[in-house]
Amino acid sequence: MAALDVRPVFYVIGSLLTILAVAMLAPMLTDLAVGSADWRVFGTASALTLFFGVLMLLTNWSPRLTLNLRQTFLLTTLSWVIVCLFSALPFMFSEIGLSLTDAYFEAMSGLTTTGSTVIAGLDTLPPGLLLWRALTQWLGGIGIVAMGIAILPFLRVGGMQLFRSESSDRSDKVVARASDLAIWLGWVYLTLTIMTTAGLRLSGMTMFDAITHAMAAVSTGGFSTRDPSITAWGNDAVEWVLVVAMIAGGLPFVRFLSFAKGDPRPLWRDTQVRWYLGFLAVVSVAMGLWLAVRQDIGWYDGIRLATFNVVSVVTTTGFASADYNDWGPLALAAFLVLTLVGGCTGSTAGGIKIFRFEILFLVLKKQLVRLYSPNRVYPVTYNEKMVDNDIMLSVMSFGFVFMAFLLVFTIALGAAGLDLLTALSGSATALANVGPGLGPIIGPVGNFATLPDVAKWILTTGMLLGRLEFFTVLVLMNPNFWRG
Amino acid sequence: MAALDVRPVFYVIGSLLTILAVAMLAPMLTDLAVGSADWRVFGTASALTLFFGVLMLLTNWSPRLTLNLRQTFLLTTLSWVIVCLFSALPFMFSEIGLSLTDAYFEAMSGLTTTGSTVIAGLDTLPPGLLLWRALTQWLGGIGIVAMGIAILPFLRVGGMQLFRSESSDRSDKVVARASDLAIWLGWVYLTLTIMTTAGLRLSGMTMFDAITHAMAAVSTGGFSTRDPSITAWGNDAVEWVLVVAMIAGGLPFVRFLSFAKGDPRPLWRDTQVRWYLGFLAVVSVAMGLWLAVRQDIGWYDGIRLATFNVVSVVTTTGFASADYNDWGPLALAAFLVLTLVGGCTGSTAGGIKIFRFEILFLVLKKQLVRLYSPNRVYPVTYNEKMVDNDIMLSVMSFGFVFMAFLLVFTIALGAAGLDLLTALSGSATALANVGPGLGPIIGPVGNFATLPDVAKWILTTGMLLGRLEFFTVLVLMNPNFWRG
Repeated sequence: MAALDVRPVFYVIGSLLTILAVAMLAPMLTDLAVGSADWRVFGTASALTLFFGVLMLLTNWSPRLTLNLRQTFLLTTLSWVIVCLFSALPFMFSEIGLSLTDAYFEAMSGLTTTGSTVIAGLDTLPPGLLLWRALTQWLGGIGIVAMGIAILPFLRVGGMQLFRSESSDRSDKVVARASDLAIWLGWVYLTLTIMTTAGLRLSGMTMFDAITHAMAAVSTGGFSTRDPSITAWGNDAVEWVLVVAMIAGGLPFVRFLSFAKGDPRPLWRDTQVRWYLGFLAVVSVAMGLWLAVRQDIGWYDGIRLATFNVVSVVTTTGFASADYNDWGPLALAAFLVLTLVGGCTGSTAGGIKIFRFEILFLVLKKQLVRLYSPNRVYPVTYNEKMVDNDIMLSVMSFGFVFMAFLLVFTIALGAAGLDLLTALSGSATALANVGPGLGPIIGPVGNFATLPDVAKWILTTGMLLGRLEFFTVLVLMNPNFWRG
Repeated sequence: MAALDVRPVFYVIGSLLTILAVAMLAPMLTDLAVGSADWRVFGTASALTLFFGVLMLLTNWSPRLTLNLRQTFLLTTLSWVIVCLFSALPFMFSEIGLSLTDAYFEAMSGLTTTGSTVIAGLDTLPPGLLLWRALTQWLGGIGIVAMGIAILPFLRVGGMQLFRSESSDRSDKVVARASDLAIWLGWVYLTLTIMTTAGLRLSGMTMFDAITHAMAAVSTGGFSTRDPSITAWGNDAVEWVLVVAMIAGGLPFVRFLSFAKGDPRPLWRDTQVRWYLGFLAVVSVAMGLWLAVRQDIGWYDGIRLATFNVVSVVTTTGFASADYNDWGPLALAAFLVLTLVGGCTGSTAGGIKIFRFEILFLVLKKQLVRLYSPNRVYPVTYNEKMVDNDIMLSVMSFGFVFMAFLLVFTIALGAAGLDLLTALSGSATALANVGPGLGPIIGPVGNFATLPDVAKWILTTGMLLGRLEFFTVLVLMNPNFWRG
């Protein structure tokens, strides 16, 4: 292998920073409109980001931009680390003056669409900062969709090679070229956001809350503009609109393309979509009825409460419409497990993801049959495609790496002084990019502000690792990766 | 496939019951010697077991005994279920008059060398019953070694095919034939037990306690003759002798053959032996020093306490020399994880087992390298043998099935009314055949007597599933297995 040429990597990061600098103008204009002095914060941050972005573009320009495998690995991790750094600037410059630790945590949480927050007192924040928190999630969300469709299948991370030819094959039928695909995906994402905004506005939210919550829901991020999250509204219509938006955010975005062209069949035929919707329905109804009996409330309220919080956790959004810490130990255990599940691949959702459970189930079925009829040919297929040994091993390796990190991060957070429930649920919620943990501190109505700095850095690392599906980052730790 | 001929299966079970009937004479003679009226219990149980054993032998006799794959699967599960039933008879007939649930739990716990007990007031029990508890473990222990060397590799359960040619190849070099191997293994097992008995007697235990504890240690069972387990003695020498015996019980028994012939190299060259001993040493010393600081005791006492309890849990024995529930949440979490690890394959130990962690580690390493150099040939070897895709998938499937059952059994025990810590640690300790759980009820100085009957049956099923490495039992649940 040749030495690693990092110029194309920094060229792409330069473009991303330039986009980020432009995005910072939105909160600047918002603060200007309401007359908040905080507009200068975004002006300064935008100028600084633009300066470094353009600098990277100019110093690393080359006539033809191509990336090989190793450059793509480096780009994927490095772009998140650097973009987060510049996204953190407004949090540090603003009147709330977050420390680097807190600002970087909040930026990472936003861009990875995790939604854990270290900011208490959201209700009194200048609107620019609230919009910026929503925007980091919204930009992160579309970045994740693009990464899941275009980059991870190419890198063959955690079984994602299964979606390799699909993303090209299928999209060839739907749209003509890769750049067209990107534009289409952008339109789908924007349309979903606008529809959600309209739904929330009609349900009684202010326009500002509607826009920011639509961004947080479609990106499955989960930042709210109020400290007690969605419980602050106590509005059934708002909750149901958000449920639909969160579910949409966890669906595979390529399937929306044919849907948008009037053919919903590819969406419905995708087995991960069926499992995802089926799982959400079964768990929501079962927990809802159990809750109705336990809390002695009507079945509608039981199902409403269960559906919102189950959908919020499984889609890895992390809004809360109730403090489910009060629902007893069985519900706690259930939410801990639900935190790990995740949505569909090629969506904005995090977690282990539905398709991996499907592959795992198929492998275990094959293993059982193979035991008593060893010579039988037993091909495993997924969405009518062959699943080879390589994909099976990738998927199962991903599962074990997830569990291993869950354990290591739990121990690390325990060593940092957190109690066991906070450490375990904090580790899970960071790695799966959900948002809230369990217990009184980081639970659904809690906040990450009071954690020690070292715990915040552990969680920040966890969010990055989980978002990039572990292997993308781990590969950089291998000395052989860097050798020429 | 042809219809399943069950006659050879019942013929073998008949032989096992005949052996069991003979074994029951030992506690009978013990009770006769001390003049306990309980000797009649064992006389009756032995006669009944002998009757059914001989009946099965006579009605299922055939000139040539051969077992095919499906018959071997059926035999493996059915023999444990039936032998446990007859082993439970003395507990039901005796003066303590256990219910069927309790008696079957105790018998399953003994024969699977788990060591969880439902009997409180051990100190006042007739010696025959105490010896019978020790004997069930001792007989179960050698049965597990035989199963792990001769049957599971043939059934290719959970990656055990890795030891297929080894058990035949290697033993061909050490001893001539399979029946010789069985006799050699029996001698090794007996020698270990006698040496441990001598060690315990010299350390100050009574002869009876020395024999029963030697049986419980070498078989990694963990039944004691006193309610507070080894804490009742408070004797350092006893603890260290037991530590050595438990470690020996968790080593691969085929390696003892060459060791017995004066060549310790095959034992030391086996990678699972190195990992096993290394892991025990590192964890014991680390926890010991931590404990010494935390409890403000000397480093020797810290290491002594940590070593005994770590070795006891990792070898899946389950003796306790201290109530580690008092060592704080970090130790609790550590013991929960240690409960799952297990010893070497081909030993009396349960759990996930060291070699599976090694294979998993090798697979993950390969996955990482494969990411950045996809075309590189990267063979995975274990003890100088090729690890193919089939073995990797088997091992990883085993890991996921273990986790899935851990979760399902935890939920089932939670639904049966147990608190979360008791449910989770109970599920783990049953599936890994360790013995004690965590918390005040089933912890190291606790007892399973007070659990509801349904929880006892769930745990009994868990012990069987874990002992037979899951797939052996699961395969019988598949309707296609039974089809002609």
